[in-house]
Amino acid sequence: MKYSIGIDIGGTNTVFGLVSEKGNIKAINKISTKGYKSFDDYLDEIVDNVIKFYKEVSNTTVEIIGVGIGAPNGNYYKGVIDNAPNLEFKGVLEVRHLLEVKLSQKGYCINVALTNDANAAAMGEMIYGKGKGVKNFIMITLGTGVGSGIVVDGKLVYGSTGFAGEVGHTIIEEQGRQCNCGRKGCVERYCSATGFVLTALEKLKNSSEKSILREYAEDEITGALIYDCALKGDKLCLDVYDYTAKMLAIGLANATAITSPEKIFLFGGLSRSGDLLLNPLRKYFETYVFDVFKNSVSIELSGLKDDDAAILGAAALCFNK
Amino acid sequence: MKYSIGIDIGGTNTVFGLVSEKGNIKAINKISTKGYKSFDDYLDEIVDNVIKFYKEVSNTTVEIIGVGIGAPNGNYYKGVIDNAPNLEFKGVLEVRHLLEVKLSQKGYCINVALTNDANAAAMGEMIYGKGKGVKNFIMITLGTGVGSGIVVDGKLVYGSTGFAGEVGHTIIEEQGRQCNCGRKGCVERYCSATGFVLTALEKLKNSSEKSILREYAEDEITGALIYDCALKGDKLCLDVYDYTAKMLAIGLANATAITSPEKIFLFGGLSRSGDLLLNPLRKYFETYVFDVFKNSVSIELSGLKDDDAAILGAAALCFNK
Repeated sequence: MKYSIGIDIGGTNTVFGLVSEKGNIKAINKISTKGYKSFDDYLDEIVDNVIKFYKEVSNTTVEIIGVGIGAPNGNYYKGVIDNAPNLEFKGVLEVRHLLEVKLSQKGYCINVALTNDANAAAMGEMIYGKGKGVKNFIMITLGTGVGSGIVVDGKLVYGSTGFAGEVGHTIIEEQGRQCNCGRKGCVERYCSATGFVLTALEKLKNSSEKSILREYAEDEITGALIYDCALKGDKLCLDVYDYTAKMLAIGLANATAITSPEKIFLFGGLSRSGDLLLNPLRKYFETYVFDVFKNSVSIELSGLKDDDAAILGAAALCFNK
Repeated sequence: MKYSIGIDIGGTNTVFGLVSEKGNIKAINKISTKGYKSFDDYLDEIVDNVIKFYKEVSNTTVEIIGVGIGAPNGNYYKGVIDNAPNLEFKGVLEVRHLLEVKLSQKGYCINVALTNDANAAAMGEMIYGKGKGVKNFIMITLGTGVGSGIVVDGKLVYGSTGFAGEVGHTIIEEQGRQCNCGRKGCVERYCSATGFVLTALEKLKNSSEKSILREYAEDEITGALIYDCALKGDKLCLDVYDYTAKMLAIGLANATAITSPEKIFLFGGLSRSGDLLLNPLRKYFETYVFDVFKNSVSIELSGLKDDDAAILGAAALCFNK
């Protein structure tokens, strides 16, 4: 049976999964991403873990067809991690090439594929989730940032640079909030976890509306707290969802005008709020989307489980090459 | 030698061209799009003209492989013209199907393909223009409206509806100018011929700056006049170009974040202003585009001649099927 090894490189941990073509995770393993003397030492640790999987299945019917990696700022074409702010290792990291060399030096001739987290998530959705058979869709990952992977005609869009699919960094308000990227008014600055909390802080400051949030210090106000208060019917918190949904809707309407997806899947962070976000989002989307696309796009929650998605997405890279 | 028949359906005229695989226009013909008793009569006229081309080449080495049509609101998947505001014929027009039936009834079994003007222009650029060999590019048509055709990985993006590629109707200013589409702040409302003139009128009204334009009545102010005055160094007119370039740059930066093109080609209307538009556009584009795409996109004028582009684009549909 065909398997691949999916590796999810995060700022804190690196997780390995042995994943079947059908999406069953046969084995899982975790190492730290931090505390190595050098990037080379970290890669050696990855190599050891990959080989461990190979040895475990050596006398079985399992055939491992490759290694897929999802990583922050991963570039599919170049196989590099390009200046990822959340990793200890800086600069341009030649992950794919170095891993292939190190593995072959140990007698394992294995293809390695690498892409960024959001593209991996889109790939996971396409192969194992609700994206199966959907030729045009957009996967939006709502987390610390807002990432996206865009599928056109059954293929992930990488574009000329390998970095296509940055819905989070489209500008929806030219003189809007200052984004970490140096520009103003990016979707990410309104719809990420940070942006969501920022909206609440702004509303607390700029209105005198009653809210449970006023019982908390500024640094105690988190996405989870806003969610809890919204569930209790706190008007200000419901307004935070409304504004977030509106800004995300504009970003998604613009992306739709460009690639005309059949579905948009939401994953991670804010998407866990379910209908609190989905209901206003769908309403605003139909308001802001260009006429010819009205009622043509279904906005849904991802079909991938939070815990498995990154591994499945990385592993899926090998099954979709 | 392989040829196809390109048909450009415009509000006023319908133009036919017999185009070789290499882009040579061997014959050209024109009929009115207006004044027919019925849509059926108009289609009969098209059929007669198509058959005329077939008869002309019947004893030569020319092989006609199909008919390609570029039309306002043309839908590639359905082969229909969908409620085009500029045509006398209203509703959903089954152009492809009806033409194929009518042609086959006269003994000509011919494949017909249809798409919208901007997609046809992109196809023309890809097959005959500067888009040759460029796997990812965006074609922007600046005219009465702002259209676009988007090429990803060597293929035109149609999306799930067939209407993908509406950069002109992405929103760049939520509370911006009222657009004809019913929404506010669309790129088209700033960068079309109408939007360009509107910017001039706004600047005249909202400032007391000297300008040659002040010697003219409001309804005498056209794109051509603004161009002439800008060439003479009229500051207000140069500012009109600057503002138009800035708004277009935001739209193009957003589209770039989604599909990461290697090139963006400008065609028609405002693009004829050349450096007056290009210089500020390139500057603003680098300001507004997300970091990873900086210096990765070349913005250029289209490689197609204005007069031939629509015919070439329509004909190209057959060569890229």
